[in-house]
Amino acid sequence: METTKILLDDNEIPRQWYNLLADLPNPPLPPLGPDGKPITPDMLAPVFPMNLIEQEVSTERWIDIPDEILQILSLWRPSPLYRARRLEKALGTPARIYYKNEGVSPPGSHKPNTAVPQAWYNKQFGIERLTTETGAGQWGSALAFACSLLGLECKVFMVRISFDQKPFRKLMMQTWGANCVASPSDETQAGRDILAKMPNTPGSLGIAISEAIEQAVTDPTGKTRYSLGSVLNHVMLHQTIIGQEAQKQLAKAGEKKVDAVIGCCGGGSNFAGLAFPFVNDKINGAEIDIIPVEPESCPTMTRAPFAYDHGDTAKMTPLLPMHSLGHSFVPPPIHAGGLRYHGMSPMISQCIVEGLMTPRAYHQLKCYEAAITWARTEGFIPAPETSHAIAAVIDEANKAKEEGKEKVIVFNWSGHGLMDLLGYDAYFQGKLTDYSLPQEEIDKGVEELKDLPKPEVHKTGKW
Amino acid sequence: METTKILLDDNEIPRQWYNLLADLPNPPLPPLGPDGKPITPDMLAPVFPMNLIEQEVSTERWIDIPDEILQILSLWRPSPLYRARRLEKALGTPARIYYKNEGVSPPGSHKPNTAVPQAWYNKQFGIERLTTETGAGQWGSALAFACSLLGLECKVFMVRISFDQKPFRKLMMQTWGANCVASPSDETQAGRDILAKMPNTPGSLGIAISEAIEQAVTDPTGKTRYSLGSVLNHVMLHQTIIGQEAQKQLAKAGEKKVDAVIGCCGGGSNFAGLAFPFVNDKINGAEIDIIPVEPESCPTMTRAPFAYDHGDTAKMTPLLPMHSLGHSFVPPPIHAGGLRYHGMSPMISQCIVEGLMTPRAYHQLKCYEAAITWARTEGFIPAPETSHAIAAVIDEANKAKEEGKEKVIVFNWSGHGLMDLLGYDAYFQGKLTDYSLPQEEIDKGVEELKDLPKPEVHKTGKW
Repeated sequence: METTKILLDDNEIPRQWYNLLADLPNPPLPPLGPDGKPITPDMLAPVFPMNLIEQEVSTERWIDIPDEILQILSLWRPSPLYRARRLEKALGTPARIYYKNEGVSPPGSHKPNTAVPQAWYNKQFGIERLTTETGAGQWGSALAFACSLLGLECKVFMVRISFDQKPFRKLMMQTWGANCVASPSDETQAGRDILAKMPNTPGSLGIAISEAIEQAVTDPTGKTRYSLGSVLNHVMLHQTIIGQEAQKQLAKAGEKKVDAVIGCCGGGSNFAGLAFPFVNDKINGAEIDIIPVEPESCPTMTRAPFAYDHGDTAKMTPLLPMHSLGHSFVPPPIHAGGLRYHGMSPMISQCIVEGLMTPRAYHQLKCYEAAITWARTEGFIPAPETSHAIAAVIDEANKAKEEGKEKVIVFNWSGHGLMDLLGYDAYFQGKLTDYSLPQEEIDKGVEELKDLPKPEVHKTGKW
Repeated sequence: METTKILLDDNEIPRQWYNLLADLPNPPLPPLGPDGKPITPDMLAPVFPMNLIEQEVSTERWIDIPDEILQILSLWRPSPLYRARRLEKALGTPARIYYKNEGVSPPGSHKPNTAVPQAWYNKQFGIERLTTETGAGQWGSALAFACSLLGLECKVFMVRISFDQKPFRKLMMQTWGANCVASPSDETQAGRDILAKMPNTPGSLGIAISEAIEQAVTDPTGKTRYSLGSVLNHVMLHQTIIGQEAQKQLAKAGEKKVDAVIGCCGGGSNFAGLAFPFVNDKINGAEIDIIPVEPESCPTMTRAPFAYDHGDTAKMTPLLPMHSLGHSFVPPPIHAGGLRYHGMSPMISQCIVEGLMTPRAYHQLKCYEAAITWARTEGFIPAPETSHAIAAVIDEANKAKEEGKEKVIVFNWSGHGLMDLLGYDAYFQGKLTDYSLPQEEIDKGVEELKDLPKPEVHKTGKW
């Protein structure tokens, strides 16, 4: 019998998070406040608890993971590393394809890797209630799960289009005791303002973030904070447990060299989680293609400028140095809701600026096709977001076949698609179409960014 | 850090199935044909391939598992054995609670443990197409998955009430390339007959079985066979991989004695899978409570007679010696669709007759309450079927607390509930009610069984 999956025991779970900020030749520029000056930790205090703000700005290479967090993570971690042998055979590729199965967590994705520590640090800080936004619902259900196990209240603003397309996600949140509403809602000023202008908007992550932040900072008790499932440094940090495990597992599988690291990329967290330990290898001389994959309909990394922009539509967040389609951008309603975000993690944006990562964009029909090939060979049904990674993996494996090269490809299978079957249904019924963002939409975003401060572009030219 | 889960590596997967027929003091009586005489293997040949019929009647204690089957099973097996520490703490029980997480398979339940071997043996026998029925959709999606990986066509008749309540299940089947229709359908004589009499019937497993068998045996090419997801001996056999793994894992956890083995029980397969290796221990002198749990609304084990009855409504199957509510019985539409079956596995029925198992029945509201307690402590959202086992586990753990006893409780977490969230929704909205089957319904079943042959009751009186 050939090995299908490489497991690690509970006691082999990584005990520290890896902080790429300690190793990036040029770390991201600082976030800027409304005055155009770098913000101070104090300015974030109404939004996040100070212990997480400290993580956000830390440049320590290794940060210890508290025991109680490890104990909860061990409900599904270490996650298995699979060898996709059946796909390899179907493609006839000499490549060896490995994937981290992050679908094994209770909410079904990588998101609880950061939801649990975020809830834990908030609780330590005396916070009793968390607010957040969610796109596809992966993040909202992850935070609902984490809050449930740690005894915090949880309020989720879910992007309208996903709220309607994915009714089961809000039921998951409810099962874990959270309160989930469609965004824009009439519960916040930000939501009411948008609804007045665009009553039929499908919503966006940017809008939902505005609503969640508003509810957190306006709570008179001071016991509410906001929690973000992607983009920020501390979120990337928490996810690095994925890549650390993968490296141990690849060593266990006897692999000495990795040629390509792939993941889908919306705000960046699942991709960073797998990729950052490998980025460090690349900084230290390893030859690895590190490939984040996004949808053609929301081409933040491949077509948007590197700029300072707000993380949300109502401009409540500081300005972040990142690839951005503009904070007013409302992505078309494709089924991979988790990839519909106008911005990108500053750390990932900086990696792209440096040339450490080579992003690419795919159309959704190709991704659904890849997802079905996957389900019918490897068995597990992937999330529409994950299918973007799979499409790139298949392309890389076919390239290896053409070149006759025994490449090692590792990717993050970021979540299962069992909550996303209406997207599959639409695909089967031929209702989905591909959509390339017209240049004028990109231009509109650029126009919006025009009057904001411009980030300096730091790049060593080494990669 | 305390251990949360006990893992086995791919190479520790059991290599043989355990056949309890070799050890039962009184094995089940033979199935009878229309003439009241024991059927011969040949009589089953239009329905099942001969290699599976051989397994059905085998009394060999150990049966080797072919390598290709093990290779596919290793996509999710060995499944993790969890210690439910967070539930233990919430209950304040001295009991140690372990569960096999069968929700880790691609379709999300224990069902592929037999779907894969059934598809494989059919393929070996030259069969190209399988038909089956499904209740909650767990079995149909499992067979769809297995057929997809092995390259067989798959046709699923899904009980109407579940087809309507669980739209995502049929999308899973479609993703794996299967064809799923609501039963009763107009594609078979059995379906048309029922629809003529009861156009608004919610359907039943008994009806769907009739339809699936009819399509298999009437295929003029002879390349179609029928596949059953529970009840039969070879199905129980394939599931014993669960209990074998659990025993290895409990030993690894340092447990020397098990006090209670619990599972939900509809046709019997998930329960048998965990329990049969422990039944053998009990036959050999171990003191273990072996507890199958069913719904009060379909009380096959706790209130129906042990009798000879057909497995399906249209009386196409042989007569099986089992607990039965009568083949015309249509269970009320509770949300645990997989537990809505009028009969019970003959092997489990015989264990009950012998006193080796002590069945109990629960109402659905108590089970949903248990499911939510589970989700909010242990994290994973259980299937409504599985919640019946959880309710019994909580009762046993509370009993251990009252008695101050350090009991070891092991149960089968047969599947996740991510496809069943509409049931949770109905529960949250207060739309679900409890339902005890009135005695006249039981009497009607007994009346129907009156003219059929009566099985002898063999029992040693030892348990």
